[in-house]
Amino acid sequence: MKIITKDQINKILPSIDILPEIEQGFKAYSEGGAVIPPVGELILDKGEVHIKYGYITGDKFYVIKVASGFYGNPELGLPSSNGLLLLFSQVTGELACVLLDEGHLTDIRTAVAGAIAAKYLAPEEVTRIGIVGTGIQARLQLQYLKEVVACRQVMVWGRGHKQLNSYKAEMEKLGFNIETTLDPSYITEKCNLIVSTTPSKVPLLQSGALMKGTHITAVGSDTKEKQELAPSILKNADLVVADSIKQCLERGEIFKAMEAGLLKEEDLTELGHIISGSAEGRTSDRQLTVADLTGVAVQDLKIASAVYRSSTD
Amino acid sequence: MKIITKDQINKILPSIDILPEIEQGFKAYSEGGAVIPPVGELILDKGEVHIKYGYITGDKFYVIKVASGFYGNPELGLPSSNGLLLLFSQVTGELACVLLDEGHLTDIRTAVAGAIAAKYLAPEEVTRIGIVGTGIQARLQLQYLKEVVACRQVMVWGRGHKQLNSYKAEMEKLGFNIETTLDPSYITEKCNLIVSTTPSKVPLLQSGALMKGTHITAVGSDTKEKQELAPSILKNADLVVADSIKQCLERGEIFKAMEAGLLKEEDLTELGHIISGSAEGRTSDRQLTVADLTGVAVQDLKIASAVYRSSTD
Repeated sequence: MKIITKDQINKILPSIDILPEIEQGFKAYSEGGAVIPPVGELILDKGEVHIKYGYITGDKFYVIKVASGFYGNPELGLPSSNGLLLLFSQVTGELACVLLDEGHLTDIRTAVAGAIAAKYLAPEEVTRIGIVGTGIQARLQLQYLKEVVACRQVMVWGRGHKQLNSYKAEMEKLGFNIETTLDPSYITEKCNLIVSTTPSKVPLLQSGALMKGTHITAVGSDTKEKQELAPSILKNADLVVADSIKQCLERGEIFKAMEAGLLKEEDLTELGHIISGSAEGRTSDRQLTVADLTGVAVQDLKIASAVYRSSTD
Repeated sequence: MKIITKDQINKILPSIDILPEIEQGFKAYSEGGAVIPPVGELILDKGEVHIKYGYITGDKFYVIKVASGFYGNPELGLPSSNGLLLLFSQVTGELACVLLDEGHLTDIRTAVAGAIAAKYLAPEEVTRIGIVGTGIQARLQLQYLKEVVACRQVMVWGRGHKQLNSYKAEMEKLGFNIETTLDPSYITEKCNLIVSTTPSKVPLLQSGALMKGTHITAVGSDTKEKQELAPSILKNADLVVADSIKQCLERGEIFKAMEAGLLKEEDLTELGHIISGSAEGRTSDRQLTVADLTGVAVQDLKIASAVYRSSTD
């Protein structure tokens, strides 16, 4: 049994090409080769915990992933994310590896899923990237988009100048040109590839001013309560993509739009089917597309397995 | 963050008085002071995995426990049980401790729950203890019963002479007088404190020959499929006790008897209520009582916390 610390994970990560790994995970999931039970959820006074678990049939390991958000932590000088990943043998149940990622691999695989969504769904010419939020996920999404989108013009929305300035300073080092705004309507008006990354419980983005041909990836909402997009955005979309249709019926933006009666299950396409080519993605540069990413255990399995493999090379 | 290995756990265990800890856990659970979501379950080709998690309000930690059974493992020279326990801060979500118990603490807390059930429900004069099964849980149940029951006469049922002889040899060293049988009806005929510990999917014990005043604790069934007791045993019982009523409505002997239409939710009493005195346990030496123990995360929380505390003393 191997224990891999966060520092070791950070050293291993640059050597792994994670995007194709996660693509394979989504593909296996959508093609029915994965067993992924419903997400376990624990609500505490100060935070929330998600337990995601499952396996791909015939693979070596099953995964259990714990990821928590304790949103008061930054006030204590601590990151809000925490957690770990566990890999067990599918054959004997023996623990193969504990990855003490403190939530970092969840952050990474979520950002990679955002890049995959952009790869298949963003308009051919992205004129400006809009980022909603200024936290770790807002940073990672942009970092991983760099691999799949040529555009370096970015507008970021945040709740205060301090967070926006810190975001701008850090992300400009990566070669982006960052404009900041306190008004989320500027994001919908001026950006045609938007990623929303906050734990908001009220919609931040409205459908009114959206540009033709925009793609929106929503990664912030992964519960029944959280919501970043007005349900009308999903209603008006030409294509609504779920990382897991089953899971999105119970949580996230799709759940919210269905609860509002503005979306039906038959309106949904699964990301893995677009990756495998069995479903169509974007077919024109005038379409509005939305990807709702609630996070699926196959992503955790794939990233944990890749880090474990590289650690034993 | 602390990592405690199975060897270290085994060194710490004898110094802890676990029974009162687990009693407190059941009490908190039944009195509504605990948050315990439904059990997570993963079914694989070669085994099954249970994820139990939750917390007691105001306590220091929340717990996530992984325990698996891969029943073909013994043929590979490996134990069938595996798993680990994780303690996280309720305040920040930070991982406090990984207990690499390989399923051992689950085995122990299950045996301790059996002892607690016997403490409150066994007839005053136990004439012979009946054990169904010869595995690790069959051994631990007897070992922990020693603390609460004076009787040292035991009859054990098993599937073969080899397993029975090995059980007899090991348990006689603890001061028990062990008779063996290949016929489970001898257990119901000759014992008035019975503990069933197998992963059987067909009832092993029938109601016909049960002695007056018998208490049966069933610990083997913790899924919708497994079953050791004929449902008529629960129907005929004067008192049916669940470790968690909510959980037993969905798995275990109580689930099976309810499915058969022989038991109703209002027939059930929760163990924690008997411990706290808010519900009656056994009231006469002629009653037939049954305790169905499917395993509750409060037990995992309490045993993991106790081991962690002792490890830092």
